[in-house]
Amino acid sequence: MSKSFKGNYFEDFTLGQILSHATPRTITLGDVSLYSALYGMRFALQSSDEFAKNSGLERAPIDDFLAFHIIFGKTVPDISINAVANLGYADCRFLKSVYPGDTISAISTVIGLKENSNGRTGNVYVRTRGLNQKGETVLEYVRWVMINKREVDKNEAFEAVIPDLPAAVPVENLTIPEGLNFRKFDNILSGSDYFWEDYEVGEKINHVDGMTVEAEGHMLATRLYQNTAKVHFNQHAMKDGRLGERIVYGGHVISMARGLSFNGLANAQNIAAINGGRHVNPCLAGDTIYAWSEILDKAALKDRDDMAALRCRLVALKDKRPDGFPHKTDDGKYDPSVLLDLDIWVLMPKKKI
Amino acid sequence: MSKSFKGNYFEDFTLGQILSHATPRTITLGDVSLYSALYGMRFALQSSDEFAKNSGLERAPIDDFLAFHIIFGKTVPDISINAVANLGYADCRFLKSVYPGDTISAISTVIGLKENSNGRTGNVYVRTRGLNQKGETVLEYVRWVMINKREVDKNEAFEAVIPDLPAAVPVENLTIPEGLNFRKFDNILSGSDYFWEDYEVGEKINHVDGMTVEAEGHMLATRLYQNTAKVHFNQHAMKDGRLGERIVYGGHVISMARGLSFNGLANAQNIAAINGGRHVNPCLAGDTIYAWSEILDKAALKDRDDMAALRCRLVALKDKRPDGFPHKTDDGKYDPSVLLDLDIWVLMPKKKI
Amino acid sequence: MSKSFKGNYFEDFTLGQILSHATPRTITLGDVSLYSALYGMRFALQSSDEFAKNSGLERAPIDDFLAFHIIFGKTVPDISINAVANLGYADCRFLKSVYPGDTISAISTVIGLKENSNGRTGNVYVRTRGLNQKGETVLEYVRWVMINKREVDKNEAFEAVIPDLPAAVPVENLTIPEGLNFRKFDNILSGSDYFWEDYEVGEKINHVDGMTVEAEGHMLATRLYQNTAKVHFNQHAMKDGRLGERIVYGGHVISMARGLSFNGLANAQNIAAINGGRHVNPCLAGDTIYAWSEILDKAALKDRDDMAALRCRLVALKDKRPDGFPHKTDDGKYDPSVLLDLDIWVLMPKKKI
Repeated sequence: MSKSFKGNYFEDFTLGQILSHATPRTITLGDVSLYSALYGMRFALQSSDEFAKNSGLERAPIDDFLAFHIIFGKTVPDISINAVANLGYADCRFLKSVYPGDTISAISTVIGLKENSNGRTGNVYVRTRGLNQKGETVLEYVRWVMINKREVDKNEAFEAVIPDLPAAVPVENLTIPEGLNFRKFDNILSGSDYFWEDYEVGEKINHVDGMTVEAEGHMLATRLYQNTAKVHFNQHAMKDGRLGERIVYGGHVISMARGLSFNGLANAQNIAAINGGRHVNPCLAGDTIYAWSEILDKAALKDRDDMAALRCRLVALKDKRPDGFPHKTDDGKYDPSVLLDLDIWVLMPKKKI
Repeated sequence: MSKSFKGNYFEDFTLGQILSHATPRTITLGDVSLYSALYGMRFALQSSDEFAKNSGLERAPIDDFLAFHIIFGKTVPDISINAVANLGYADCRFLKSVYPGDTISAISTVIGLKENSNGRTGNVYVRTRGLNQKGETVLEYVRWVMINKREVDKNEAFEAVIPDLPAAVPVENLTIPEGLNFRKFDNILSGSDYFWEDYEVGEKINHVDGMTVEAEGHMLATRLYQNTAKVHFNQHAMKDGRLGERIVYGGHVISMARGLSFNGLANAQNIAAINGGRHVNPCLAGDTIYAWSEILDKAALKDRDDMAALRCRLVALKDKRPDGFPHKTDDGKYDPSVLLDLDIWVLMPKKKI
Repeated sequence: MSKSFKGNYFEDFTLGQILSHATPRTITLGDVSLYSALYGMRFALQSSDEFAKNSGLERAPIDDFLAFHIIFGKTVPDISINAVANLGYADCRFLKSVYPGDTISAISTVIGLKENSNGRTGNVYVRTRGLNQKGETVLEYVRWVMINKREVDKNEAFEAVIPDLPAAVPVENLTIPEGLNFRKFDNILSGSDYFWEDYEVGEKINHVDGMTVEAEGHMLATRLYQNTAKVHFNQHAMKDGRLGERIVYGGHVISMARGLSFNGLANAQNIAAINGGRHVNPCLAGDTIYAWSEILDKAALKDRDDMAALRCRLVALKDKRPDGFPHKTDDGKYDPSVLLDLDIWVLMPKKKI
């Protein structure tokens, strides 16, 4: 019998099943440098130990999406190697800061299963938790994917269980990282004069700059996250596929859009939640990524006058300047330039009184 | 009003104006590794903690040009996003070693302004200081750039102020990093038998090796430095430009030439000053960089018998071997292969008596 | 006289000669991150400080091949800059774990010399030791290369000395890193249910996945190792060569194959020895690497019931899936897809009783 692992098929998942994922990973300052070099990150809290100390933390935490990608990567061999499609994310909450030196592992629980009517595929819903070396959950999220069946065979008796998921993380479920406060926030160092009060619901922000994706860059990133999905790496196999090219890991586009969003949202220091997201089109090496944001909602945070939350739509485009904020056309379809439509909560300092 | 920042125009600068730049950055061992991997650095003092301890330092400092690029990068959004041209550097002095763990920020003062006769642009002179977390200046330099005016409109009354700048940093202004000494210098470990005494003014050194620039490499470097100049990153925009390609950050060429200069100048352990420099031609991905040096001057250092200074011209070429030391042609124009003409002071151990 | 170094020729080597190589290098967490990002490493012992502590080590050691490449890189300027061919490796033993923070240097001794009958080249055999800052040998190996003579001139009196080298490192010479034990080995975290007992001599393992090499990736890796062999970096010179391209450092292929071998050999936590190896064909940017392994031998280790050794053939292929385990054809020649044929001893946990 072959010792190499071909991944799980739909039939291999059962409701309530717990999957402990390999490989635990100690996150280091090296990972942070590489992440910075891949996306040009400039948010002050993650860039400077001094700024982080001034914000109540022991030192600079890692970028929230870096933590997300590393945890996500661990789930790929067990969950999505045989996936036909990533269908969605929901209820992703960032609970604790991750610091260089923390060792991160991941556990998923199957919370929903649904066979598709074609008998070829099924949808699997998992709730994944990322844990640090103390066993504390640093973030958790629900993800659902369409997965091939091992055998094409419609099971009429299969009882679908679809979990009840929030359209957005409710404000009262947002977590401020322990110790974090913006009472002494220095907006000269952070690079922006705009505080939470300055943003209005419905406001759109053009992040202006563009960044071209290269093959080695997206592969370095994806390997850093120990994500093994073959479509990202194997040009010999992909050259005969529909696109003729390796597909860029969707998380690479997320981080690139987040990096670009500094220009207009420089004070959005933390990601508190991912409410949902869709990778609308595949990204390939050679594409130039642009981004724009829309403020979807604003919310005060209980007992806090130093910071509050903004709910933002973060849209990544390819090869199209964001001046006109391309999103959906009149018929409700996405503009063909849209790569990513992400819905997040961010934490931002309030004006000092 | 748009919250994204489009940069300053000539009219936005005033004499004596102080610009505190975002984002402070804690430099890490990860940055050093990436820098090494980008340029293949082999200078012993920056490569080995043990070698550095043996030279009186607590551990290996970061490469001087890495410090320079990180400080330079911070100034780009405020100073040169709307620059038409980088006109020059002067009086750049390296004052303190930077170590992994130091948090670096940057402040610039406008020391000169001159409107150009076309009414479209003006020259801005700034003195930039890089500071560590203790508020100590680690390096400072003057740079001047030609910047677009917001409105084309010749102001006849504008009184130009052009600062008085040294053609080269005087020897007495060179600073030896605190604690550094080469009394126990091990030239087997450093990789070269040639000490300060072995070099002669007028001597030219062929650095032999060539290194090809790739798109992902120069973008990784430039993002590591948090330099946001759009010409380096956006192929979608640049494809319609004069060169049809992203332009490589000039500092990438400097560091590549410095890396190549190991072969012939392996004992040039520190950069003490940049006297001036010119990016003669743009560098593009695909170019192969070669380098050669000329010894312009030699100088003893006050009260020191363990080290002394060499003033070197460091020339980077593209796609041309440095055997013939191409520089300027008889009519005073640069050979078309020249990318960089840099004038630096380096510190080198003297022979033990 | 030129101060740049053109490397040693055959006549420059003498039997018993000791070469102390530049430049010592402090290995850091940054190097580990970059190595992970280059190859997607997922072996638990090197990935997680917690896993390493649970295995008796103070923290995660660096990947064994990373140590090998860094030590190998130091020898290139002195040994193989003028090499015509890498002829072989033998008796490579990994003796001590290398940790981030260790400063590594390298010393070689010439142990064999043989002039070739054409009078143009000779073979040089060196035993190289890598040392840490305490002077302990962390690994050692023998390598032999064919090197150009300075002058074409057959010396009839030259007495060839060819060292006696083992075809494979004998089991009793394998060294378990100090403190390492797998008594509490967690095979859920490590990612594989297969222990030493599960592998059989003659068994072949398809590592399934493919990874495409890019120019920037292999250059980043090779510069990280401070390897200066010009064929890897200089497209301006190589475009006129036989292949028209830069040649990928053979060690890059080794590490990529090792990374791919996780899928099927995830519990092979340590490399204990390289018995021999051959770079059968040159690898170029654009090639997709696949890998397969064959179990050549199994051996218990003295006084140990927690781990034992597997001798594996690790074969890297280009642009060919490993399903049929391509190796040699009936006439004893290598299949043209084979890049690397490496013979190693690995350490693997035994089943708990």
